[in-house]
Amino acid sequence: MSVAKDTNIPFSRDSLEQLLKRRFFYAPSFEIYGGVAGLFDFGPPGCAFQNNVIDAWRKHFILEEEMLEVEATMLTPYDVFKTSGHVDRFSDWMCKDLKTGEIFRADHLVEEVLESRLKGDKLARGETIQEAKEDEDKKKRKTKVKDIKNVKLDDEVVAEYESVLAQIDGYSGPQLGELITKYNITNPGTGGKLEPPIEFNLMFDTAIGPSGNLKAYLRPETAQGQFLNFSKLLDFNNEKMPFASASIGKSFRNEIAPRAGLLRVREFLMAEIEHFVDPEDKSHPKFAEVKDVKLRFLPKGVQESGSSELVETTIGEAVSSGMVDNETLGYFIARIYAFLVKIGTDPSRLRFRQHMSNEMAHYASDCWDAELQTSYGWIECVGCADRSAYDLTVHAARTGEKLVARKTLDEPRTVEEYEIEIQKKKFGPKFRKDAGAVENWLTSRTQCELEDLSKELQEKAKIEAEIKGIDGTVQLDSDLLKIEKVKKTEHVREYTPNVIEPSFGIGRILYSIFEHQFWARRDEAERGVLSLPPLVAPTKVLIVPLSNSAELQPLVKKVSSALKKEKIPFKIDDSSASIGKRYARNDELGTPFGITIDFESVPDDSVTLRERDSTKQVRGSIDDVIKAIKEITYEDTTWAKGTAGLQAFNS
Amino acid sequence: MSVAKDTNIPFSRDSLEQLLKRRFFYAPSFEIYGGVAGLFDFGPPGCAFQNNVIDAWRKHFILEEEMLEVEATMLTPYDVFKTSGHVDRFSDWMCKDLKTGEIFRADHLVEEVLESRLKGDKLARGETIQEAKEDEDKKKRKTKVKDIKNVKLDDEVVAEYESVLAQIDGYSGPQLGELITKYNITNPGTGGKLEPPIEFNLMFDTAIGPSGNLKAYLRPETAQGQFLNFSKLLDFNNEKMPFASASIGKSFRNEIAPRAGLLRVREFLMAEIEHFVDPEDKSHPKFAEVKDVKLRFLPKGVQESGSSELVETTIGEAVSSGMVDNETLGYFIARIYAFLVKIGTDPSRLRFRQHMSNEMAHYASDCWDAELQTSYGWIECVGCADRSAYDLTVHAARTGEKLVARKTLDEPRTVEEYEIEIQKKKFGPKFRKDAGAVENWLTSRTQCELEDLSKELQEKAKIEAEIKGIDGTVQLDSDLLKIEKVKKTEHVREYTPNVIEPSFGIGRILYSIFEHQFWARRDEAERGVLSLPPLVAPTKVLIVPLSNSAELQPLVKKVSSALKKEKIPFKIDDSSASIGKRYARNDELGTPFGITIDFESVPDDSVTLRERDSTKQVRGSIDDVIKAIKEITYEDTTWAKGTAGLQAFNS
Repeated sequence: MSVAKDTNIPFSRDSLEQLLKRRFFYAPSFEIYGGVAGLFDFGPPGCAFQNNVIDAWRKHFILEEEMLEVEATMLTPYDVFKTSGHVDRFSDWMCKDLKTGEIFRADHLVEEVLESRLKGDKLARGETIQEAKEDEDKKKRKTKVKDIKNVKLDDEVVAEYESVLAQIDGYSGPQLGELITKYNITNPGTGGKLEPPIEFNLMFDTAIGPSGNLKAYLRPETAQGQFLNFSKLLDFNNEKMPFASASIGKSFRNEIAPRAGLLRVREFLMAEIEHFVDPEDKSHPKFAEVKDVKLRFLPKGVQESGSSELVETTIGEAVSSGMVDNETLGYFIARIYAFLVKIGTDPSRLRFRQHMSNEMAHYASDCWDAELQTSYGWIECVGCADRSAYDLTVHAARTGEKLVARKTLDEPRTVEEYEIEIQKKKFGPKFRKDAGAVENWLTSRTQCELEDLSKELQEKAKIEAEIKGIDGTVQLDSDLLKIEKVKKTEHVREYTPNVIEPSFGIGRILYSIFEHQFWARRDEAERGVLSLPPLVAPTKVLIVPLSNSAELQPLVKKVSSALKKEKIPFKIDDSSASIGKRYARNDELGTPFGITIDFESVPDDSVTLRERDSTKQVRGSIDDVIKAIKEITYEDTTWAKGTAGLQAFNS
Repeated sequence: MSVAKDTNIPFSRDSLEQLLKRRFFYAPSFEIYGGVAGLFDFGPPGCAFQNNVIDAWRKHFILEEEMLEVEATMLTPYDVFKTSGHVDRFSDWMCKDLKTGEIFRADHLVEEVLESRLKGDKLARGETIQEAKEDEDKKKRKTKVKDIKNVKLDDEVVAEYESVLAQIDGYSGPQLGELITKYNITNPGTGGKLEPPIEFNLMFDTAIGPSGNLKAYLRPETAQGQFLNFSKLLDFNNEKMPFASASIGKSFRNEIAPRAGLLRVREFLMAEIEHFVDPEDKSHPKFAEVKDVKLRFLPKGVQESGSSELVETTIGEAVSSGMVDNETLGYFIARIYAFLVKIGTDPSRLRFRQHMSNEMAHYASDCWDAELQTSYGWIECVGCADRSAYDLTVHAARTGEKLVARKTLDEPRTVEEYEIEIQKKKFGPKFRKDAGAVENWLTSRTQCELEDLSKELQEKAKIEAEIKGIDGTVQLDSDLLKIEKVKKTEHVREYTPNVIEPSFGIGRILYSIFEHQFWARRDEAERGVLSLPPLVAPTKVLIVPLSNSAELQPLVKKVSSALKKEKIPFKIDDSSASIGKRYARNDELGTPFGITIDFESVPDDSVTLRERDSTKQVRGSIDDVIKAIKEITYEDTTWAKGTAGLQAFNS
């Protein structure tokens, strides 16, 4: 709405958290049972806010880009995640203190200990710590580091610590172990020795069926369910490429030590897109529409040099310079930006950070995170990864199903390819029960491998191979098969699509918006205001009759019926509290508009419309006021334009 | 829309299932991995249909009744379900065949074996089996019973079997075991002996956190998450009673042998309401609005007499006669009926069946299921239970948190109550570290228990008690405490609310609607029609240009922009297929309206509007046609009324 906020009261996370809990936006789950770390329930305003954000997401992405929505199950059998690599690699590193039984997440431990030492150094040098507020919050979150010790460090040590912290997301478990040894990091609470980091898989496991034999996991992302349905989706799309699927649903990660409220939870709502694209053509037809959008980037090179200075440039420039790999990735980065700003994040506290090569998920070939700045630091809220052909390839290889798209070539082309010709008559009798496995092994070789095998066969008149499921070395003599380069005319090119994946952590986005939009008025610091954009605010309008007088009742009814007809969510507050107090209560809930009904309303049906952030008021007929609300809320109109036809009003 | 369907082609479940899979409404999850029984994924039309049903549900219940929406986590710690009774009682009975390793759900086994014997008897008596189609489907589902044997039974045996089948939902595990022995029921595939039924808990279990010590379950219902938030919700509602909370989300049940497609699945979407009400006043302010709604009931008495004859009466009469326990329960039954009919269930295939006393869930005091008739028989789709004060009471007792509401009395009242007076000075030194536990035990006694304790104290000058956490018997001498009846004046009555719970299984409802609305036109039996109501149909409009001619393109654009502006979901089919074929493809998807653009459209912007079920066509301006679509889809207008201003059209 771009109404300036009249405040210079500094942000207080405590006040925000109290508000969010008091008004039941969300609260710890199972609180009467003592709670469980990393699990939160949403109350009525939190649900409405989240529903509105999801609705906006569906319109901004699924409808606008004609994506195919899919809902896959959360329960997922072991085999799927074994193939995808999650069983082996989806883990964090943890250190145990065998004496106390405490468990620490290794990277967080290193981070917080080095940060506290740097602060101690600053204090020893007599420097004031500028981000005092933020530090205080951090200290609260990271309860493990009890005191900041006033110890001066050598200049080189300071530089070394700072460099480690800039790369903290990129270390492997063994590297973290080395840092812990090198910097003599111990249990911050007791000073006790810690065991070297070990891997902890973050998936929750369970078993399906009464026999308990079918091991399963709760999905840690919605993506696999989309990949497994690739062929059905391509068919639904009449075989047309590129196309995108999308899923909105819960995922689960068994975090080692979740803190930081909604930012690190064990059960969370995701919205994920899998955009399937020809690896030879990652251009995007609508890229021109976004190319001039200016964004702030933190590329991997900058981070690897130990810096965090942002590069500000257009997405068009970012793609043409090669910093962002391709147009499709770039298009989504710009669309993510537009979405985040539309639902209430502060663009000046939003950046796109590229993953460093050693940080990237096992399936990704390039990845940019939309990060939002909060009192907890910069938080990854949306990942935008190029997963290449990884997932479709591994699932196809494991299941034997073809997961490919086809492109009719403009003109047929001649290709030279290695082909295998098997002498079936000799092959079967020779390998008997293993014949299938051997043939399968042969037919799943790549062109490169076939080239090597062909050479081997020529030179030694045999191939020797280790084949899974067959004991010993398998020998294939040259009378059993030929591997030769043949010329073929192709009319269709068959390929495994690449996948560009924008992946949204909805809870983190919601929390960041709360921080970005929370403030207090100068004269009533004890009550906060949540300046949620009207589009996503839980309730759009508060109806406030000046008094409980029977004379005003028909008008209350008239206004509420009119709002109901337009499907605009509203609340009535006809309590005896003062008008100001009633509005203040709803400022906390982020309600953007108020309609005041007073005795002047009785003769002519005129009412007052109040805007939450500026507390500006205008007056007009019920119909005109509701028309203005509708346009500002749902049709992206500004307050100035939407209320241009209404009269200024001073109470 | 109440347009008569022109068909007498009998329903074929096979054709329906092929359509649903071919058009990717839903499909087995992980199909390329061989699938997992009881898990299904929704494709684009299934997602849209489900989203629309959920949206309608939210409006019909949450908005209309101003319910408080809550979203609680699916992961739930052990303690919660231990308290609620699910750990001990949420189970089915299964029989194992130790020889083959097969596992059968005991009640299903008895049902299918007795049914097959009754059929064999009918064949032996030379009777034709009327429900041939249904039987065939059943046979397919219940693959275990291979052949129906042509064996005549004694008349008494037939009567006995029929009586058992009418009560099949009411037997306990041991009773099922007796039936299996009595009727000599064996493994239907092999004739092998079965072990007696044992209990199998239907909750999926997992562990939270890196230590693996916090045992947890995936919730089998959303209800507990609402109960645990009761105090926060009451506070949010400004302490006003009655009120309702509502949750929409996934739940999980580890079914023993899921079959029957969407009707019995292991992960499913629920929409549940918990209406909290004063146990002394279960009247409902809006009951008068629904009292004349006529419904078809199957009360418990009728079932217990072995019959299934329906009682048809108004909900007003059902409540006043005591058949339905109270107005609030009755109000929800009528609202459930209205909702189910609105979204496309056939009212003539809908009944409300009361649970028999031995069938009721452990927490319920009365329960009515909305059942929908399908080719699988009558299916429970909505439960409407009076859970009494069960859940709030047990959670309060377990956690020590008060889960109560308060009512200011019109005039203060005098009550006599037992009160405990503890001699703190003697109490502490005597019990030392156990003092807290003893005091806690005392203060959590009910009035009845206090009466008994008071007598014991008078008669024996001491109380002897077993207290959890304290070894041996605790002895409380009369110098330590007094328990006496005292008179008090109360201004506020404090009570534990009762809960009326309407609980919707969304997948079952969706599937039943598919069956109720699926048919085929007489001349094109190979293609089906899904007559989904416009409100919930995945796509509302298909735009069909007569040809690919450039002349028609601006009109296609004009119509699609206008639909976009009104937020009406549409698709364009500009393929070269015939108009008829293009419509037929979309009849399968349940698209209710078609807009044909032809060369007559060019001069005057007129288009043809086609209605799916009747294939009636009318013609008018783009604006008028879209207005009609909007009114019929979203404003509950009939086709006749909505198109009254348009011209009849015969192509």
